[in-house]
Amino acid sequence: LEEGKIAYDYRNAIIHFTMLNRFISILQQKCFLSPENKVLVGVSGGADSLFLLDLLSRSNYPFIVAHLNHQLRPEADDDAQFVETISGRLGIPFILGKEDVFAYAERFDLSIEEAARHLRYSFLFENAKQVGAQAVLVAHHADDQIETVLMHFLRGSGLAGLRGMPYWSLPNPWSDEIPLARPLLEFWREEIDAYLQDHNLEPIEDKTNRDTTIFRNRLRHELIPSLTSYNPGIRKVLYRMSQVLDADYEVLEGIVDSAWEEICQEQGHGYTAFRFAALSAQPVGIQRYLIRKGINFLLPGLRDIDFHTVERALDFLKKPTNSKRMELAAGLYILLEDELLWLANDTAVLPDRAWPQLLPNDNYCIELSLDLTGNLLLGQGWRIEVDLQKTSRDSYRQALENLDMFQAWIDIEQVQFPLTIRCRRPGDRFHPAGMAGRSVKLSDFMINVKMPERARARWPLVYSASELMWVPGYRLAHSFLISDSTLQVLHFRLLRSDET
Amino acid sequence: LEEGKIAYDYRNAIIHFTMLNRFISILQQKCFLSPENKVLVGVSGGADSLFLLDLLSRSNYPFIVAHLNHQLRPEADDDAQFVETISGRLGIPFILGKEDVFAYAERFDLSIEEAARHLRYSFLFENAKQVGAQAVLVAHHADDQIETVLMHFLRGSGLAGLRGMPYWSLPNPWSDEIPLARPLLEFWREEIDAYLQDHNLEPIEDKTNRDTTIFRNRLRHELIPSLTSYNPGIRKVLYRMSQVLDADYEVLEGIVDSAWEEICQEQGHGYTAFRFAALSAQPVGIQRYLIRKGINFLLPGLRDIDFHTVERALDFLKKPTNSKRMELAAGLYILLEDELLWLANDTAVLPDRAWPQLLPNDNYCIELSLDLTGNLLLGQGWRIEVDLQKTSRDSYRQALENLDMFQAWIDIEQVQFPLTIRCRRPGDRFHPAGMAGRSVKLSDFMINVKMPERARARWPLVYSASELMWVPGYRLAHSFLISDSTLQVLHFRLLRSDET
Repeated sequence: LEEGKIAYDYRNAIIHFTMLNRFISILQQKCFLSPENKVLVGVSGGADSLFLLDLLSRSNYPFIVAHLNHQLRPEADDDAQFVETISGRLGIPFILGKEDVFAYAERFDLSIEEAARHLRYSFLFENAKQVGAQAVLVAHHADDQIETVLMHFLRGSGLAGLRGMPYWSLPNPWSDEIPLARPLLEFWREEIDAYLQDHNLEPIEDKTNRDTTIFRNRLRHELIPSLTSYNPGIRKVLYRMSQVLDADYEVLEGIVDSAWEEICQEQGHGYTAFRFAALSAQPVGIQRYLIRKGINFLLPGLRDIDFHTVERALDFLKKPTNSKRMELAAGLYILLEDELLWLANDTAVLPDRAWPQLLPNDNYCIELSLDLTGNLLLGQGWRIEVDLQKTSRDSYRQALENLDMFQAWIDIEQVQFPLTIRCRRPGDRFHPAGMAGRSVKLSDFMINVKMPERARARWPLVYSASELMWVPGYRLAHSFLISDSTLQVLHFRLLRSDET
Repeated sequence: LEEGKIAYDYRNAIIHFTMLNRFISILQQKCFLSPENKVLVGVSGGADSLFLLDLLSRSNYPFIVAHLNHQLRPEADDDAQFVETISGRLGIPFILGKEDVFAYAERFDLSIEEAARHLRYSFLFENAKQVGAQAVLVAHHADDQIETVLMHFLRGSGLAGLRGMPYWSLPNPWSDEIPLARPLLEFWREEIDAYLQDHNLEPIEDKTNRDTTIFRNRLRHELIPSLTSYNPGIRKVLYRMSQVLDADYEVLEGIVDSAWEEICQEQGHGYTAFRFAALSAQPVGIQRYLIRKGINFLLPGLRDIDFHTVERALDFLKKPTNSKRMELAAGLYILLEDELLWLANDTAVLPDRAWPQLLPNDNYCIELSLDLTGNLLLGQGWRIEVDLQKTSRDSYRQALENLDMFQAWIDIEQVQFPLTIRCRRPGDRFHPAGMAGRSVKLSDFMINVKMPERARARWPLVYSASELMWVPGYRLAHSFLISDSTLQVLHFRLLRSDET
């Protein structure tokens, strides 16, 4: 009997030594942690975190224990005391926090589990920052992993969910600098329980773990056992699946990141601008990730982006609506403007593009005199230049062949002074050069030539007396065209300050 | 009441018209079928295939009905008659087949379902080929799709399984030329049943569909209803998931295809050679797909490649075994040779590489005479050239600085004639130039210098009497080194026929 006991102990010592080695190599290779710097570990006192605490105490990693008292159960104070005592016995620094989860849940309309999770992680990361820890460690293990995978499966998650929790995540919802590490992901509950028993470590039992009104507990206690009747190896199978899908996801992530580099033109407060053509040319799988990434950037708090929201955006890519604009969800919209697709918040102020725009407080009504040959500065870095030319074969040809609609050659005989530059006004009409028949509403003209909607109100327009003479960038009015009988020409140019 | 009936009929007419339009647009856009050419449709007479038959008959696609009598149920002959009658009534050509599924299952040790499936698809594709159909159509619908997804999930499949069945697949296990098309994948069972009822179409009821000892039926009748208690929308959710994962898979497939182009050096009967360095440089997710693709190529019949087999191959990539060879499964092995990784069947004859090799039936034992200055052809496009030189400062320096081990400068004073060229023999020993001490076993030397194992037996070796003088490509023997007191030098070169 005694011999049997020794053999048993010996065997266990080897198993535990192997577990410790696996653990340390995970810390190094999968969690990228250096034994030079301390880590902060969240310890509830339950089996999983007690196991993590014990392994850490046998490693050469310096660490700090943090425990949040959620005040949810009558034993909460005892639990905190328990973790403090263990830490003290091991000589490990201990940080205690206390939060009113009920109140928080009520205030932010969250489930108790969600509220507890928010508060717990905020607590852990705040303290990690304060003590300068290189990472926050939590005790999720292989069974947690497959429950997570199953939960995502039931919710219809994509690869990002089906791959499960990563060993290392940065950025994470709580920090852009401190990674969240999960070094226990390959340890199974049975291994952990056996280890604790052999080391006479008695964890706190959280009775809510048995509460099958909590979704995750139902998975653990009902669904997974029932799935075993379909495949006895279901746990191993789901674990493996998550590993394989994680590798797939990593490949896709790499592709998405470089596609993003190529396709994202600019990002600002509340908006992202994509190059529309490049985005449309991507396979739909990548488009989906890019749209999600864009939404995540605008609404970092959003945990699950609604499937249909993303699909509607994808449909828009295939076939933009007539208005070129579509509301998505949660105050987000997409807007197609020329070659750019904007994904933006309702409240965001999109940057002015390279458009000529009169400043909102400028009431341009500037009389141009014929001897003016210099610049008229319009603000936003734009200016108008005008010069008087005798008609020559050259200027006539230039006018006929003109492709640069930011230039215009005008028959001065037709001009009525004063020439003014101003924004559009209700009721403005326009008779575009070359168009047969009568004038059209200026607003219709602007739509027809696809002037970006945002640009219309402040677009600089040149009027001859009260007649709209030139819409720079688009068209001259019909009656100002020069002909071979024109004697003198006004040559207009609308220029950016960096042009000459 | 009468008015209600008309409204009801009217509403249904619209629904059915919409269904038909959806169906036709799927035929065109997702199954890539042209209404110019006929298709062959498998019809069991059950609800799904009856629905497919009815929609097809209202489309402008020419088609042929095929039915395999599996002889599994007493009603089998009646069922065949039923399908024939319907086809006849519609004026559609009808092909009947008959197979003994039981016997086939026994002969090939398959389950009845597997055997039925093999025989059915073989029958459909054989007939499709015979009648020149552009595709084989089958009636899998959205509920089948989610059952498939769930089945793959329970078996721990990767993306390839979780994405479900494709609308169009080519190559498929039955043909490299005729695609298998599934145009009903977006129709739900409820829609199909309602349609049939409204059209007074009464399908055959296959009672085995209720048999919950069949795995798929258990999913349908037990697991999916139970999952509804976790997520009432589970069917829609799984359907959506499969669509999203399908797009992801397509992206990965594109990457894998171009990686394959880059990494696969050659393929032959029973083997594939990968460029090892390029393969190792890929992310593990892509490596996994490439290995699977390689295995699929060698064992096209294999439906599920064992997870562990692939993982062992991946481990080998990270850290090849000492023997540079590893058995995988089903007679497959991998072999690392210089820069190539071979994935091959035990029975495959790997092509000779660019090695010098004596032909198996050549018993080279050629006496070299000192006046020989021409070529000695060794076969396989290799030759030995030898010439006699007076020692000069030049030849001495060349010998000392020699980096091309396919050349050797030999002190003729040390040579005992005859010089012979032959393959190794058991017991051969070798004293490499520059190595202190005594000779080593030639077999150990070959291992130490990493000579590819396959090349060893037929590697050309040059002997001075019975002493191994030169291992071309690797090393000269110690006692033949030239020194500054050497008077005459034999200069050997082993050359490929295209070298001079």
